[in-house]
Amino acid sequence: MKHLPLFGNHEYTLGILGGGQLGKMLCQAASNWDIKTAVMDKARDFPAAHLCHRFVVGDFSRYEDVYAFGKSVDLLTIEIENINIEALERLESEGVAVHPSPKTLRIVRDKVKQKEFYQEHGLPVTTFRTFENAAEVKRAVDDGSLSLPFVQKSRSEGYDGRGVLIVRTDEDIKNLIDEPCLAEKLVDIAVEIAVIAARNHHGEIRTFPPVAMHFHPEANLVEYLYAPAGLGPAIEQEAIQLAQATIEAFDMTGLLAVEMFLTEDGNILLNEVAPRPHNSGHHTIESCSVSQFSQHILAISGMPLIRPELLSPAVMTNLLGAEDYSGPVQYEGIDQCLQKGNVHIHLYGKKETRPFRKMGHVTVLDRHLPRAIEKAKFVQEHLIVRT
Amino acid sequence: MKHLPLFGNHEYTLGILGGGQLGKMLCQAASNWDIKTAVMDKARDFPAAHLCHRFVVGDFSRYEDVYAFGKSVDLLTIEIENINIEALERLESEGVAVHPSPKTLRIVRDKVKQKEFYQEHGLPVTTFRTFENAAEVKRAVDDGSLSLPFVQKSRSEGYDGRGVLIVRTDEDIKNLIDEPCLAEKLVDIAVEIAVIAARNHHGEIRTFPPVAMHFHPEANLVEYLYAPAGLGPAIEQEAIQLAQATIEAFDMTGLLAVEMFLTEDGNILLNEVAPRPHNSGHHTIESCSVSQFSQHILAISGMPLIRPELLSPAVMTNLLGAEDYSGPVQYEGIDQCLQKGNVHIHLYGKKETRPFRKMGHVTVLDRHLPRAIEKAKFVQEHLIVRT
Repeated sequence: MKHLPLFGNHEYTLGILGGGQLGKMLCQAASNWDIKTAVMDKARDFPAAHLCHRFVVGDFSRYEDVYAFGKSVDLLTIEIENINIEALERLESEGVAVHPSPKTLRIVRDKVKQKEFYQEHGLPVTTFRTFENAAEVKRAVDDGSLSLPFVQKSRSEGYDGRGVLIVRTDEDIKNLIDEPCLAEKLVDIAVEIAVIAARNHHGEIRTFPPVAMHFHPEANLVEYLYAPAGLGPAIEQEAIQLAQATIEAFDMTGLLAVEMFLTEDGNILLNEVAPRPHNSGHHTIESCSVSQFSQHILAISGMPLIRPELLSPAVMTNLLGAEDYSGPVQYEGIDQCLQKGNVHIHLYGKKETRPFRKMGHVTVLDRHLPRAIEKAKFVQEHLIVRT
Repeated sequence: MKHLPLFGNHEYTLGILGGGQLGKMLCQAASNWDIKTAVMDKARDFPAAHLCHRFVVGDFSRYEDVYAFGKSVDLLTIEIENINIEALERLESEGVAVHPSPKTLRIVRDKVKQKEFYQEHGLPVTTFRTFENAAEVKRAVDDGSLSLPFVQKSRSEGYDGRGVLIVRTDEDIKNLIDEPCLAEKLVDIAVEIAVIAARNHHGEIRTFPPVAMHFHPEANLVEYLYAPAGLGPAIEQEAIQLAQATIEAFDMTGLLAVEMFLTEDGNILLNEVAPRPHNSGHHTIESCSVSQFSQHILAISGMPLIRPELLSPAVMTNLLGAEDYSGPVQYEGIDQCLQKGNVHIHLYGKKETRPFRKMGHVTVLDRHLPRAIEKAKFVQEHLIVRT
């Protein structure tokens, strides 16, 4: 593959499957370079729909829709993993450049395959066992071969905290997810970290500086994340090398967001990956020398990558739908938050809010990280997503 | 005017007259805040056309087109001065929020009125005389009342270097612009600088850090500009105060780009203003805590302004059409330039290039300004806009 001369060249189209916030931010990045974009998703009022050259209404889980859309573009990428994979495979076999590759997607979207893949490649993961359903898990607990506490994860479709259950007590056993799943040891996590790596087909790899994540206790969503991650140079270097080794193992072209645990005893373990732009990289839009979205486009079009450099400490917080509201969205407190200064608000343009739905994010920059965290907390309290 | 709750609220529409690069970058800024946008310009392939919610084909110099468009939006702004002003006046009288106001536009787009306005308000400008045509100018030179060298400027329609002539020799006299014009003393300019100020209707003013400009000798366009401007704190403070006084004098709501001369004898003189986002503020997208485009939207919608802070030294260079090429555009050297790192390329999406046409811009960030200037020069040499 030569590099695709997408820049300012409307002979070529970048196709994006999924028109949510990631598709939107990919379109925003593409627009700086005058890249022609086509997006497919369910309805014309989706976040990316008004920011592309061509929006196609379609269902990315349907073979026919994905295939037809893919045939109409020159380079195809995704914003979400659960795309119809058979269609992607056929498109790839017919010469459409598909990044991430269907091969990577098949591994990533099955959490068991993903973990087996890491083991095969000598990448550090927690030990785990696989089960077909809740009854099997329960039996293993009963016969003493699986001991509490553990984490149960559905093999597939885990997203935004769905499909993950921490099992500590007998009470939790009653709520087991009744699906093909894995159970992994609950490790003592000091901090969850993420490193986003990018790789192009020449094998050039660039990594973004590590971020540390702080999770919302109920929703199991990132509440805020921050960079620099404050882990010290040795751990940060180790995390970066693990991200590099992981993207190499996948032989990937594009972005790979690598989520890891730093355990209390100082080990880094791979948690999960996402082969696309990711929530843990949203802060890069304002804080880095290149955003994850621009870097993804560079990587998949075969362009040289940019060395990501953190220009300012940054904290990113998700704007989640308030717990008691479902319906047409409105926002409160935007002016108060902006007045704090260096508060970058992104509203995705979703028309309806639901409890904990990701409606937007806010990146706060500040020379002094603790002050940025303070501001991010102010935003969490004062920027209300309600009906 | 209460502030217009545009953010994430599709009950309100921001209308933009002009869909060129400034309209495009306004749409990009609006998209972060999920602001519903409508744009009017001549053709559907204009830069902003695919980045707004509604694009209207129309001619912004036609009364009917501007009026009809203005009636369909809640808040109206412009990317260019030569809009049909009678239509704007009627819209304003009928309650549409129009920023900048037609009153400001009437002053700004006539260079004589603009200079008289500065004199009335005690703002420092070069001395000047007005003339009706080239013959009148020539007569004044002949009778000794106007001495060489001087600068001749058309009263109106000066844009991108058109309508300005530096008259040093008898030879130049032959090329005088034959239009209503002014002639002003040619001052010894040490450096041209610009300060962008923003003001909302509460009277809150924020200014961006001054930039210094380096002009292309032939095209009379900014070749590159840089911030920090390196003028020293006293001069920078004086420039900022002059920008504040100027936006106050206009009683403006919105952005005012204030171009100034720092003369060799250390005085600051007002040159011209633009009541809108401006070429001298493009670097703010990547280098500042708020971009000029976001700040403009905040100002015209009555929101609190953000304190602009320069996060990194920056150099901005325009991508101009190469001298010998006219026709469908293509770009060369993008990969080489990106590889330099921290090189932010903006291609506006104009389909045809012409000599010196503004086709895009590039902002280079670097901790060390001279290194950023070196990189910007590399970009000028290697990023070629041709057919």
